[in-house]
Amino acid sequence: MRQNAPVFDFKIQSRDGRARVGHFETPRGVVTTPMFMPVGTQGTVKGVSAQELLDIRSQMILANTYHLMLRPGESLVAAHGGLPGFTAYPGPFLTDSGGFQVMSLGHMRKITEEGVTFKSHLDGGLVELSPERSVAVQEALGADVIMAFDECPPFPAERDYILRSLERTVRWLDRCLTVKSRPEQALFAIVQGGIHLDLRERSLELTLPFDTPGFAIGGLAVGESKAEMYPAVAFTAARLPEARPRYLMGVGHPEDLIAGIAVGVDMFDCVYPTRTGRFGYALTDDGRLNLNSSAPRSELRPIDENCDCYACRHYTRAYLAHLVKAEEMLGPRMLSLHNLRYLHRLVERAREAIASQSLAGWAQTWGERYFKGAIPEWFQKALEAGSASS
Amino acid sequence: MRQNAPVFDFKIQSRDGRARVGHFETPRGVVTTPMFMPVGTQGTVKGVSAQELLDIRSQMILANTYHLMLRPGESLVAAHGGLPGFTAYPGPFLTDSGGFQVMSLGHMRKITEEGVTFKSHLDGGLVELSPERSVAVQEALGADVIMAFDECPPFPAERDYILRSLERTVRWLDRCLTVKSRPEQALFAIVQGGIHLDLRERSLELTLPFDTPGFAIGGLAVGESKAEMYPAVAFTAARLPEARPRYLMGVGHPEDLIAGIAVGVDMFDCVYPTRTGRFGYALTDDGRLNLNSSAPRSELRPIDENCDCYACRHYTRAYLAHLVKAEEMLGPRMLSLHNLRYLHRLVERAREAIASQSLAGWAQTWGERYFKGAIPEWFQKALEAGSASS
Repeated sequence: MRQNAPVFDFKIQSRDGRARVGHFETPRGVVTTPMFMPVGTQGTVKGVSAQELLDIRSQMILANTYHLMLRPGESLVAAHGGLPGFTAYPGPFLTDSGGFQVMSLGHMRKITEEGVTFKSHLDGGLVELSPERSVAVQEALGADVIMAFDECPPFPAERDYILRSLERTVRWLDRCLTVKSRPEQALFAIVQGGIHLDLRERSLELTLPFDTPGFAIGGLAVGESKAEMYPAVAFTAARLPEARPRYLMGVGHPEDLIAGIAVGVDMFDCVYPTRTGRFGYALTDDGRLNLNSSAPRSELRPIDENCDCYACRHYTRAYLAHLVKAEEMLGPRMLSLHNLRYLHRLVERAREAIASQSLAGWAQTWGERYFKGAIPEWFQKALEAGSASS
Repeated sequence: MRQNAPVFDFKIQSRDGRARVGHFETPRGVVTTPMFMPVGTQGTVKGVSAQELLDIRSQMILANTYHLMLRPGESLVAAHGGLPGFTAYPGPFLTDSGGFQVMSLGHMRKITEEGVTFKSHLDGGLVELSPERSVAVQEALGADVIMAFDECPPFPAERDYILRSLERTVRWLDRCLTVKSRPEQALFAIVQGGIHLDLRERSLELTLPFDTPGFAIGGLAVGESKAEMYPAVAFTAARLPEARPRYLMGVGHPEDLIAGIAVGVDMFDCVYPTRTGRFGYALTDDGRLNLNSSAPRSELRPIDENCDCYACRHYTRAYLAHLVKAEEMLGPRMLSLHNLRYLHRLVERAREAIASQSLAGWAQTWGERYFKGAIPEWFQKALEAGSASS
């Protein structure tokens, strides 16, 4: 009653094992899941223009509440009519709650039942963030999907701390939903519990009754191994409601998308494609191509013959390697663009495989090539967990 | 006989005082002068893609022989079929001879009649550059217009040194034309002589008989004042043949384009628009807008309402100022794009003014606004020199 928005209908189009293709309706258009969301931390996907995000068929862009509230401040974004006016990207947005960044970037933070007090990483100024403040900032930023203010415990953390933290996160969720006032924004709850399945169970038990328009799997990819992480992802995804999109926060290496999709995840985000692009790496089906190394410097072919991104349609590996070596801006720019398109294409290919009931075989073939014949156990197990039941 | 190419016809379309609009035919298309050439030092106009260069209606791109011969080496560029294949920009190119960069970037250089020996700024390796080597490299790079290997004396320099240097530059020109083998490339001679009109006269006397398809005015914008520079530009331009394009090398602030066009210059290049863009400045008719300052941070309007560049059509000053402040790559990228488009639009407007015989008045009005009512004497004198005779 208090949180359900007029839109945000999620319709499953096809299933294959636990994986599914869905249509998620947002005020700024329908997005097709599984999807990868490029990260525009400071209101810009690093080095990529709004038009380019459309060109590579991005669907939803993530922006960070923590960064934008500190600079330029949410009121300036609101003065632009929200993130679409500010960034010129006309499609759907998602904002995180700021909770995760407070943990990773804020200094001298103090967490109480009320919220979090921390020193800004920009100027050391004392800042407070609470469920109420997070929602107010996210309402000013105007994304289509906003996230509940949660605590993401570090890894490793004491079981007991994780339990107390996830219980507080549920109380914070309740406070978020109490103050939320814009029906055109969907607030997603976040399930915590670290890598402990019983704590995930406890978090699910407390969180699911809120029946939010979508659910996130939080508290993962914070330092644990993939062998520890995927059982928690699979366990949680299997217990989330079928008719709601499931968002695995902060995860997005190519192999993670495949494994996550197999166990039923619908949404991903990660700075990885743009960050590794700035470091001179290109994502391909054959693994990560290092354009800092000497081999590509003489290769007159594109990064990927099958890729339709601007970089692959216009530039050779040799040219891009030259740009990287010469520290030219166009290098990181083009590699960021390619890497984002690679991940978008990867989920597009996964969607096709799901629609044709061939995900397991396709993912296996993809993995054999990507891992050069040495598929890691965690990946194999994730594919098996995905095929095991529906 | 030995240098004239099948194309490179230069037809004057209209005149206004000493200024003219011309069509210069190159193997990769006809360009309209006056024109500003974006500088792609290392085979990339910093931060700008090939498609964006087309979008902002660039005509000819300059690339630097010195940088490309050192890295990645001209043979790799040749393996791509030359600069258009390497950079994906399908239009005309111009390469400089490497001479100027040897003077400004090479260490421990030794200049003899044979050529120049210097240490690479990249790895300290000993490199030789001569008229023959410069032409060979420029033939491998494959630009439409290539430049004679010249010496550009520093400022200030002894009259006597400038005289000996310009005479040697003419002997080097002769050697360049002797080895030049690709008829689809036009080699432009360069007139030297510093700010001394009698030495300019001497250089002209020795250079004009070569009757190259175009002539450059070199050795300026190297430290002298504008009051010293423009009389030398006007003097030289007035004595160059009417039927050949005139290129003022390394010059390209907005006020320079107007003054240069007024006294009869047809081609310009400068790193200024992209460099000042990377520093957070935007070129406008009201002067340079500093996006590092506080005022633009709250302005919800574009840099320039009349500009048709992507940045002005999509982003507010506040957003761009945020990008600059947050050190986001999209900031320098968009400011570089805007600044290039500003200069292209400026020459387009100058061409229209020439065609309608209204250059002097238009330039005066432009100057009043740009210089905020305080037009400098050198600018006024250049406009007067341009109107004085035809």
